[in-house]
Amino acid sequence: MKKKFKKVNAAILIIGNEILSGRTQDKNIAFISSWLNSKCGISVNEVRIIPDIENVIIENIRVLSKKFNYVFTTGGIGPTHDDITAQSISKAFYMKYQFHREAYKILENYYTKQKFNDGRKKMAMMPSKAKLIYNPSSAAPGFMTKNVLSLPGVPSILNSMIENCKEYLIKGLKVHSTTINLYTVESNISKQLAEIQKKYKNYIDIGSYPFFRLGKIGVSIVSRSTSKVKLKKVNQDIKKLAKKKKIQLFKI
Amino acid sequence: MKKKFKKVNAAILIIGNEILSGRTQDKNIAFISSWLNSKCGISVNEVRIIPDIENVIIENIRVLSKKFNYVFTTGGIGPTHDDITAQSISKAFYMKYQFHREAYKILENYYTKQKFNDGRKKMAMMPSKAKLIYNPSSAAPGFMTKNVLSLPGVPSILNSMIENCKEYLIKGLKVHSTTINLYTVESNISKQLAEIQKKYKNYIDIGSYPFFRLGKIGVSIVSRSTSKVKLKKVNQDIKKLAKKKKIQLFKI
Repeated sequence: MKKKFKKVNAAILIIGNEILSGRTQDKNIAFISSWLNSKCGISVNEVRIIPDIENVIIENIRVLSKKFNYVFTTGGIGPTHDDITAQSISKAFYMKYQFHREAYKILENYYTKQKFNDGRKKMAMMPSKAKLIYNPSSAAPGFMTKNVLSLPGVPSILNSMIENCKEYLIKGLKVHSTTINLYTVESNISKQLAEIQKKYKNYIDIGSYPFFRLGKIGVSIVSRSTSKVKLKKVNQDIKKLAKKKKIQLFKI
Repeated sequence: MKKKFKKVNAAILIIGNEILSGRTQDKNIAFISSWLNSKCGISVNEVRIIPDIENVIIENIRVLSKKFNYVFTTGGIGPTHDDITAQSISKAFYMKYQFHREAYKILENYYTKQKFNDGRKKMAMMPSKAKLIYNPSSAAPGFMTKNVLSLPGVPSILNSMIENCKEYLIKGLKVHSTTINLYTVESNISKQLAEIQKKYKNYIDIGSYPFFRLGKIGVSIVSRSTSKVKLKKVNQDIKKLAKKKKIQLFKI
């Protein structure tokens, strides 16, 4: 296949015992992944959720930063003892863990000198070569170290900061996605769908997802591609298949 | 530290482009993790989300099955072309990918001989030494291969099957968790909290999670331990700290 577009990829590394234990339902993965694809044309190819343990963070940062164009970390950049993302990334890249001058000033301004205590000062400690990701909602900046972008774990704060990541990212081609919903079961169309996938294997990823809603059984056929033209063609084929099998299409 | 309890751990491997792309919000991680801890005393120590790509699945199965006592996979065991979990696990463990006799019978019975088409037959194809995990809601069984338990991706079906995993699992000691909510900000208690964590470092993990709800700022202090006695002690210390700092406690 002739490469018609530049593929840019990323991994997400969720750092936090609260997600691993099941206490907290993660909301950042879907948000970051959707944003990266729709706004930057970057595909998330792997996600890992790991505990607040220094060696584990170091190992995962090293592995993922080599494997992908970008790594987004969430969590562990607050003022408490269990916030060890910045120090772990420093160690992963053999950088000094030190005060970032601008971050220090931002936080000192935000809290005023009197209330700028040790916990808050900790949030200005970063890997020596970190670049800031500004935080419009609660001041404490995220930071980018090599190709690793570190964001907080609280979804509302993370969401407010995500646009400030853009300046550091190379754009890829956006992956478009279309969904056709069929009143059928997967096994009724699995053979023909496999043939359609084969036909377009270099351009399109077709996924099949059964669901049960309002007492009805259906299958969502999701096609993903950087080419809108190819997507149109695959959808024509799927609709032809539905017609041939007398399957009703419907909108959710 | 004297080992007073047996630690049993697990990893979760979510196989599915739809989660990675952000199209679907994962619900299985929190469910499996909570169930494993509360019902089996097993801690989830790592989660990975990966695409439906054979080599990627094989590599992750090999790595995680060596690293943890159990691996739970979700997704990719249906009848369509993008369901490649069973064949990938077969390859990961150098096993044949073949019809499982009992699974074949279960599915043939469920669908009747007439409607037992190729797509449905595919759901009886498993690694040669797989043991079945029965499915009370839609017949197609999950399966256990070595220490890897494979479940479907649809949450309602997965939830109905989870109890049938129990017979294959060695139990560990349950990790208990308590939460104290404080009307304060993290940086106001970060120093003292670090000291409390240090005092109990061999027995208890203390996590600090800020939140914003109904216009109020608070911090949830979550302590986790296999010892209820130790948990009581740490909570006394946290309450003492709150009293000293004149911080109000509250229930959510």
